[in-house]
Formats: sequence, structure tokens, C-alpha cells
Amino acid sequence: MGNSQKITMAHGSGGSATRKLIQDLFHKYFQNDVLDKMEDAAVLDIPSGKIAYTTDSFVVTPIFFQGGDIGKLAVCGTLNDLLVMGAEPKYLSVGFILEEGMDIRDLEEIIKSMALTAEESGVKIVAGDTKVIEGSGGIYINTSGIGLINHKPFHTSNVKPGDAVIVSGSLGNHHACILSHRMNIKNTISSDCAYLGEMVQNLIKANIEIKAMRDVTRGGLATVLNEIAESSNTTINLKEGSIPVDPEVKSFCDILGLDPLYMANEGKIVCFVSREDAEKALSIIKNSRFGEKAAIIAEVSERENVAVTVTTRIGGKRILNVLQGEGLPRIC
Amino acid sequence: MGNSQKITMAHGSGGSATRKLIQDLFHKYFQNDVLDKMEDAAVLDIPSGKIAYTTDSFVVTPIFFQGGDIGKLAVCGTLNDLLVMGAEPKYLSVGFILEEGMDIRDLEEIIKSMALTAEESGVKIVAGDTKVIEGSGGIYINTSGIGLINHKPFHTSNVKPGDAVIVSGSLGNHHACILSHRMNIKNTISSDCAYLGEMVQNLIKANIEIKAMRDVTRGGLATVLNEIAESSNTTINLKEGSIPVDPEVKSFCDILGLDPLYMANEGKIVCFVSREDAEKALSIIKNSRFGEKAAIIAEVSERENVAVTVTTRIGGKRILNVLQGEGLPRIC
Repeated sequence: MGNSQKITMAHGSGGSATRKLIQDLFHKYFQNDVLDKMEDAAVLDIPSGKIAYTTDSFVVTPIFFQGGDIGKLAVCGTLNDLLVMGAEPKYLSVGFILEEGMDIRDLEEIIKSMALTAEESGVKIVAGDTKVIEGSGGIYINTSGIGLINHKPFHTSNVKPGDAVIVSGSLGNHHACILSHRMNIKNTISSDCAYLGEMVQNLIKANIEIKAMRDVTRGGLATVLNEIAESSNTTINLKEGSIPVDPEVKSFCDILGLDPLYMANEGKIVCFVSREDAEKALSIIKNSRFGEKAAIIAEVSERENVAVTVTTRIGGKRILNVLQGEGLPRIC
Repeated sequence: MGNSQKITMAHGSGGSATRKLIQDLFHKYFQNDVLDKMEDAAVLDIPSGKIAYTTDSFVVTPIFFQGGDIGKLAVCGTLNDLLVMGAEPKYLSVGFILEEGMDIRDLEEIIKSMALTAEESGVKIVAGDTKVIEGSGGIYINTSGIGLINHKPFHTSNVKPGDAVIVSGSLGNHHACILSHRMNIKNTISSDCAYLGEMVQNLIKANIEIKAMRDVTRGGLATVLNEIAESSNTTINLKEGSIPVDPEVKSFCDILGLDPLYMANEGKIVCFVSREDAEKALSIIKNSRFGEKAAIIAEVSERENVAVTVTTRIGGKRILNVLQGEGLPRIC
């Protein structure tokens, strides 16, 4: 496609311009045996059993940032949601909503990034759709995904008193990265946007009994732990000093008065295992891609009055609530 | 929820406002055993075999119109895409992108409409996501869907010379309805937005061999027939007088210079069967819900120079191309 081409309303018509866009970009980069059939729906062979199925929309701004872009985010985010249910991600659908005026070169970069991330993750993009709306060149992406579950699905209700809580790496990087871009602050903070398939696969291969797992995105660790404590009817006790935060992110947070516990991540999971499995699981995560900064950060106890507490460095306890208010808009 | 409540950025934070929105609206209306687990992905039992999988985003404006709303459209559109592959739709995911300032009562109406349409169609909404962006109160909905294929999937490459082409009803109603709303023209034209499960089920039950089937949406019948002619390497010959168009839609088109063959529909399918099965299939469609105005409109021949021709009333032939240009923006 030309140098200065922009998305127009015609690209959303369903007619010849739509078809050209599909051929020149989507099919060029996403091509596979299923998508190439160009039917109204993909036909997939599924072995008998359980599947995991999820959806997520992505509206992040800016659309390109240190460590990723909206396309990589849209693939990793949905794949990680499948992973944390204990599924092996296999298929993705992609729905683009493009604003009139979008630079087609930017769209091409995003599509290349999605294709590369999908390929690295061993999944196929098998269904797609494109719509065009008025606006000023923005893009929104929905992905849905299907994964195969080959063993007992993880479930937050499996969490029991005595379990240990592992976070797979340092917190707040994606949030600090996006905010830095928006505030035009120059630093080297990179989004943690990543697919965590290898890490979870390694835990399963080592026969670690994963009770529950969640990815730590919007709302931050505090919000996720509250949700798990509620659905398992337990209390989770976090140790303040144990939470990994990169020094540059910490400085950034200190200056702006941000708390990494409420900040969004895009390549972090929190994992619940029995106390006996905790050190082994930690070591496996640390030796997996994107897991080197993992830490045991909390333990689960019988339900008290509150869902999540933090034991401070001087031994006091405070309540850790879910995120109130708006966080950072359009973070993912 | 209160009378004058609006969507704010906080509803997209992933924190407490998001959770309240999910509980007060999504879970209230969409509730089922799978969704109620509130995990990162739904876990579904799938029998061994083939599934159909598709996605579609909906950006129609206005969001409420005669005969439907964006929610009903988002459910019917994706279910019909599964149907035309020969699948029995079972599960849906829903991704909402809401603009700040959206009236929560309007959102509730849309959600109720989606829940009702899903229930009537026998499908479960099992996964969801909500994001909030800046804007002026609009809404975009992505749905993806999974259906089970219990027999040979329909495929456009099955179409052969000699096959008959049936359209399931009159053309242009959705397009004319949306355009009437936009132009503030008062008339009784209603969108044809509908789920066509009963019709397709009746054809299958009667052992009609459906070669291929497509729903006739953006781009209109002309565009769909061109796509099928291309992928089956045939020519499709349309008879001009045979195409059903409601009198009020015809008048509307005559005044505005519109061609129903290029207009969008949201509850119409085009069905390819052998010549021998054509009358029986037509009669089954006519006796099914939403099929009373069905007609045999074309026949398939060996590939000529062009994909689709129209035989005019006086016996001449013209070429029918795919939709060029932009059609009507935000029609679905």
C-alpha cells in the first residue's frame, strides 16, 4: 500500500475497498489454512473435552509504546487469559474498529506485530472483522480466544488457607510505561507486555498443582487478590517488602504518588500453590522466560473480616481494597 | 441504577466501578452457570468434532431503531454467521467499548435486548469485557461465537453449475430503516434484524443438501454473490424481476436512487441448492419464521468472463459488480 494512505469510510463498507484491505493486510500477514477459506466463520477440529473461551477489547493510547503496541497487547492479553485457566491457547479471532484517517502504515505495523506474536505463541488467527467509524485515526481491537484444557481447570475456588501466592515478576511496568508516554517523560521503562505460555507450561510439566492463577492487569494486584479472596472465601496476607518493583518504576511511582499494587501489568500472573510446592514453583517460574523476578508475596489464611491485608515492614496490618475511582484510562 | 447515571472513565478501570457495572447489569441479565463463575475465561464442554468460530463488531448508529437495536444486531449477526456454516450456535462472547457519557439506562436496554435474543436463540453469553473511551456517549459491541457442526460443513466451493439460488426474503429493509432514521424520514420501514435458526434447522431436518449459505449484510446481495462466484469459480445469473423488495422499501429506493442489491440486510440468507431440491427448499423456507417472502432468484452456470450477471426484464444482460465506494457508513 502507498506511503500516505489513510483509512476511509469505504474500507468499512463490506465492498471492494474492504476486500482490498483484507487481501493486502489481513490475509498477507495472518494467512493460514483456516483463514484463507474466507468463509463467514472458521471451521475448527476440536478434540472432545473442555475448552477455555474468552474475549477482551483493547483501547490503549498511545498505540505504539516501549515494549509493544496495541496489537501485541491484544494477542498477549487474550492468550494469557486462556493460560491462567489452565488452557493451551490455540485459536484467536480479531475484530478491528478503525477510525477514519488512520494511517495504513501504522495499521500494517500493528498487524505484523499481531501476526508475529501469534506465531511465536503457536496460535492461529482464524476469524476477523473490520469496521470503520468517524474519528481521528484511532484503532480499537477486540480479540477472542479458544484454548484446549488437557487437565483439571484451575479455579479460584480451589484456593485454601495455607496456600502460597507467587507473583511472576515486578509490578507496574506497563502502567508506568503508558503514563510516561502520555506525560512525555523520557525514561527507559518498558511495558511488560508478554505471553507467558512457557512459564505456565513449565509449571504443568513439573506436576506443580496450580490451585488458581490470574493475570494481573487493570486494577492491579490489589484488585485481583481481592477478587480471589472473595471467590475462595479466604483472606490473603501480603508482606509489604516482598513485592518486586523495578527501581526505575519505583522512582517514577514515588514522584507521582502511585502505588504499584494498583497499577496495570500486561505480562504478569499471580499463582496459588500449596505451601509445600511454593519454593519449587518459584524456582520454575524464575527459570522461565519473563519470570526471573518472581517472588512469593503472600499467604492465604482462614477468612477474616477483610479480604486482603498488608503486613507492613514494622509489623502493622492495613486493609488492601480494590481499586477505587478511575485508575489510568485507556491503559489496555 | 439511578435515573440519570452516565458511564464514566471509572467504569473502565477494572476496579470497584467496573465490578458494580458487571454485577448490576451484565450478570443480572446474562446470568448462567458458566458466566457466574467470573473467571478470566469460560470453561466449556465440547463434544469431539468440528466447531464454527466467528467474530463481528457492531458500530451502527442510531443504536435504537425500528425493529431492533445494536444489541439485538450484535447477537443475531454473529449467530447467523455461525448458522450459514452449518453450525448450531451455542456460545457467545461480548466485548463492550463504551464512550464516556453513555446513558446507563440505554446500556441496560441494550443488554436486556441481547439477553432476550440470546435466550430465544438458545445460546449462552459466557464471556465478556468492558472498556471505556472518551467520546460522546456512543457504544460499540464486539461479539464472537462458537457453534457445533454436526454434519458436513457448508462451503462456497461446493457450489456447482446448475445449482439454484434462493434468497430468504425481501432485500434492503435494514439499510432503508437505518437511513430513514439518519435522514429523519418518518415511515414504517423496519429493520429485518433476526436470527434465522429455525429456517436453517428446518432445511437440515428435511435433508435438503445445502451446498453453501451466506448471510447478506454489508455490501448487499451483489457483493455476496460475487464472492461466492469467485470462490466456486462459477457465474451466477440473476433474474431481475425475481428479487423480492417490499413496496415501501422500493419507493424509498426509487426516491433516493438506491439499489436494493447493494443494500445491507440483517436477517437474510442466500442459499445454494441443487436444481432438484430448489422448490422443496423454497417451500421450507417460506414456511419458516422470517422466510415468507423467499424466492428463487438465480441459477449457477459454468464460469463465463464475469462473476455475476443480471438478465433484465427485456432479456438483456448486465454485469453486477461488488459494491464500490463506501455504501452507508455504520450500517451494522
